[in-house]
Amino acid sequence: MTIAALDVSQYRLPLDPPLTDATHGAMTIFELIVVDIRTEDGAMGSGYTYTAGRAGGAIRSLIEDDFKPLLIGADAGRIEALWQRLWHAVHYVGRGGPVSFAQAAVDVALWDLKARRAGLPLWRLLGGHDPEVACYAGGIDLQDPIEELLARTERRIEDGFRAIKMKVGRPNVHEDVERVGAMRNLLGDGFPLMVDANMGWRAGEAVQAARLLRPFDLVWLEEPVAPDDFPAHRRVRDVGIPIAAGENLHTLAEFQALLAAGGADFPEPDLATCGGITVWRKVAALAEAYGLPVTSHGVHDLHVHVLAAAANASYLEIHGFGLEQFIAHPLEMRDGKAVASDRPGHGVVFDRERLGAFAI
Amino acid sequence: MTIAALDVSQYRLPLDPPLTDATHGAMTIFELIVVDIRTEDGAMGSGYTYTAGRAGGAIRSLIEDDFKPLLIGADAGRIEALWQRLWHAVHYVGRGGPVSFAQAAVDVALWDLKARRAGLPLWRLLGGHDPEVACYAGGIDLQDPIEELLARTERRIEDGFRAIKMKVGRPNVHEDVERVGAMRNLLGDGFPLMVDANMGWRAGEAVQAARLLRPFDLVWLEEPVAPDDFPAHRRVRDVGIPIAAGENLHTLAEFQALLAAGGADFPEPDLATCGGITVWRKVAALAEAYGLPVTSHGVHDLHVHVLAAAANASYLEIHGFGLEQFIAHPLEMRDGKAVASDRPGHGVVFDRERLGAFAI
Repeated sequence: MTIAALDVSQYRLPLDPPLTDATHGAMTIFELIVVDIRTEDGAMGSGYTYTAGRAGGAIRSLIEDDFKPLLIGADAGRIEALWQRLWHAVHYVGRGGPVSFAQAAVDVALWDLKARRAGLPLWRLLGGHDPEVACYAGGIDLQDPIEELLARTERRIEDGFRAIKMKVGRPNVHEDVERVGAMRNLLGDGFPLMVDANMGWRAGEAVQAARLLRPFDLVWLEEPVAPDDFPAHRRVRDVGIPIAAGENLHTLAEFQALLAAGGADFPEPDLATCGGITVWRKVAALAEAYGLPVTSHGVHDLHVHVLAAAANASYLEIHGFGLEQFIAHPLEMRDGKAVASDRPGHGVVFDRERLGAFAI
Repeated sequence: MTIAALDVSQYRLPLDPPLTDATHGAMTIFELIVVDIRTEDGAMGSGYTYTAGRAGGAIRSLIEDDFKPLLIGADAGRIEALWQRLWHAVHYVGRGGPVSFAQAAVDVALWDLKARRAGLPLWRLLGGHDPEVACYAGGIDLQDPIEELLARTERRIEDGFRAIKMKVGRPNVHEDVERVGAMRNLLGDGFPLMVDANMGWRAGEAVQAARLLRPFDLVWLEEPVAPDDFPAHRRVRDVGIPIAAGENLHTLAEFQALLAAGGADFPEPDLATCGGITVWRKVAALAEAYGLPVTSHGVHDLHVHVLAAAANASYLEIHGFGLEQFIAHPLEMRDGKAVASDRPGHGVVFDRERLGAFAI
């Protein structure tokens, strides 16, 4: 199981139409960083992470210049030991930021390799709970007129979605109230609806918004405030609305601080940005210890596996930046649920030729 | 004041002999990343950051690929606006890690440019408190035999140092006690002595160590535990020994969380790793609001200026990885205090030709 080769590739993929939220503004491209690992006896694994359009070069440099020399010649099967080795090697410049993304891509490749070698789909290798995972359509729609928001929602219901998330954080919170009200009216009582503020508010504004949005029976209000202001999360939660948070946290310690502060009902680690499957599962265990579910953010083709292995799985976010056009077997849905595949490993096979046009 | 050019250079500088601490092991090189900014009307500024030997390529990529396009054509005088622009541009992959180092190098260059244009040394531009700053010799000496530790200490006293820091975190804490006891014996009562554990302990071990070290009248015990375990810092502090911490924190929010948890007596931001002079000064203000002093870590040629401008300045750490051999005017000491220079800007002029041999 000695690692013989590691290759990194970086792509800039267009987002058409551009996506807009309360913090990042209009995003016209996203970056995909793919890591391929091969052992001396020919086993293969691939992993990936992504950015909102910037810092992909830093991630690639960390993997290529700093991690690769520490991985070549190492035992691919000792994922936890390798994770710790990388963490400590760049700790002085790490503990979050691009380092968490770079470790994630390597970690996913190692888990993929392990599962493929064992002939098991990842969700089974990880302990296998339930391959059918509740999911929701994640919309990035802050700038869309209400009519467009509602029309897309109708198409998503026709596509089989049974839960939907929309953005909030318009310049005037009463616009948010109007938009959420129109959505609740369309969806009817009881249909699971989430809203996502993408850190658009300061604590006082968020408390006011939460009070105004509380009547709409939301599954959760997501990222109301700055990601590392944990006491502010708690203040908003105390209004009486469930809080989802964590897509911008990049370490296990940050999740511990969030939960210890009583800041979230739905911890939302993104395995592609918090250090990989290894860390995502620790966050899931932490959430379980706090009596909480765990949800996900982004890279749904990977998250379906870890949620399918978790006893406390909540909704899988379905939202992939259009990556499905580059993937051989896009995520399957059945009766409104996402289904973890039975292909060995994570089962994500990129169309490398098609991706190649966007390589940098 | 429009930014016309920005250049980044990266160097790998040998550490001879290698330096050793409780977490990073033996370091044989460190990386220096230098940013030079020039405005259309010919004003110049330079900034720099450093690493413990890895991730320099990521920092360079962030500056070159992500920040430079956002800076060229911008008003060099609006440092706070530019800082915010960079922070938000890479927020998704940022909020710490290499991003904080990259922002620091740019921020220092912009402050240097502003001060040089104004014909003022940085410490005066920043408000000017007292150019004479208490300082200590920071030793990286965990592996040194006691005799060597004591001999070096004697040389440092001869060199004029009036405060000294040593490492702790030996495999058996009683070795630490013996070494600290020997140092106290050499230095005599009342001589300021600090110890630095470099995150070498878990909370329970740190509490025990603090209890054993308390009799030696230390100025502080530094980084007893993992940098982001703020409640553990509080536990150790409650033993009754002052705590210094913060060299591994990379955002203002992390310092707020540390101080809110009651985790430190001596907040220790490193401007080269926490986002620059802009963030260092906010941390200094935060500390002052908590009734605390502020100290520093690394890059003493830069920190002497910000400490010389701070009402709550504590000790400057003197420890520069041997960088002085590449600097035209190394830091001056007078009567045991470091003196902020009166040259315009930060006054650090690198010998570029000599550095060039180590460029990558």
